[in-house]
Amino acid sequence: MYNVITISRQFGSGGRELGRRLAEKLGFAYYDDEIIAEISKRTQLSEEYVQQIVEHRPVTLMPITIGHSFYPVQHPLMEQSQNIYQEQARIILEMSEKSPCIIVGCCGDYILREKKLLRLFVYADMNSKVERCRLKAPENEHLTVKELRKQITKVEKNRAKYYEFYTGRKWGDKLNYDLMVNTTNTDIKLIVDVIARMFDKNVTE
Amino acid sequence: MYNVITISRQFGSGGRELGRRLAEKLGFAYYDDEIIAEISKRTQLSEEYVQQIVEHRPVTLMPITIGHSFYPVQHPLMEQSQNIYQEQARIILEMSEKSPCIIVGCCGDYILREKKLLRLFVYADMNSKVERCRLKAPENEHLTVKELRKQITKVEKNRAKYYEFYTGRKWGDKLNYDLMVNTTNTDIKLIVDVIARMFDKNVTE
Repeated sequence: MYNVITISRQFGSGGRELGRRLAEKLGFAYYDDEIIAEISKRTQLSEEYVQQIVEHRPVTLMPITIGHSFYPVQHPLMEQSQNIYQEQARIILEMSEKSPCIIVGCCGDYILREKKLLRLFVYADMNSKVERCRLKAPENEHLTVKELRKQITKVEKNRAKYYEFYTGRKWGDKLNYDLMVNTTNTDIKLIVDVIARMFDKNVTE
Repeated sequence: MYNVITISRQFGSGGRELGRRLAEKLGFAYYDDEIIAEISKRTQLSEEYVQQIVEHRPVTLMPITIGHSFYPVQHPLMEQSQNIYQEQARIILEMSEKSPCIIVGCCGDYILREKKLLRLFVYADMNSKVERCRLKAPENEHLTVKELRKQITKVEKNRAKYYEFYTGRKWGDKLNYDLMVNTTNTDIKLIVDVIARMFDKNVTE
């Protein structure tokens, strides 16, 4: 049925956990940080730097005034962002052809739009996302609920901007996904069991 | 796991077909037009009239000017709409307690919010909805694509207004549903098979 599943997810919705568990269950490869690591290897840029570019709104134009005229020229960071995106697209295409796999984020749903995909969007309400972030935070991080909410909103805004810039699509718009899953007050393992059932041979072929 | 499934659906998305097939497969009761028929029976209003009220934005206030003052008074149609809604809520509660069931539309997800529900939202892109409406249209109805689009938009707008008026919630907002299913270019039977699997004992208990 489907050899490739892409997962887009709200920050703190448990989308990565869902992806990892689903990949384990189905025996699919799982690509998430692996994509960043591979871009870093190929571009010789640090993983942290690549991560930062991929999770942020691209810088677009840098205005330059010459005489009385205004010339928009491309910002050097923009060029780098575009190079990284191109590498990302190449890597994701390669990964999708190697073996059945799950790809988290990185505009995977758009990059692989010509293929037969199951495109998931994972979301939850704010309280649930705050709670999940709190539980998963490093021990030395003590953000207040207010700070966590702010962080979640910021990360999602940047994800949306990056996605929209390179795909021309609206991040989170239901028409870009086949199935949208609400993880609020739900056990991720249960959802994984349910989705994995879609891949049972007698249902899907 | 779940004894009650509510289905909210865009017009032409195949949500009713999905509900009917799912009910058959699970051996659940299926309530859709049955709710309107029951309201009609209890209120002595015609089914057509009840249908019209339930699928439309409620009329709210009727302005009356007495002397120089402006008095908003309740419109008689509004009172009728409220009576119908109250009957609808009573009937849906009763149905949900009688046996496992699927309830399509009629603010079921809100009316039964205190119960353990699986809340589905079924949607599709406009072309797909137009095509489904065209296929299901009565033989003597020959609407153009433009007219069908207009009809779909109007019906959905009215559904949203009715839902929002009585529930205070936004119709179609993903946080009001557990699972959102895109039926664009998809076989409803396949989706039904997949959702029915959620109800297999070994997955869900």
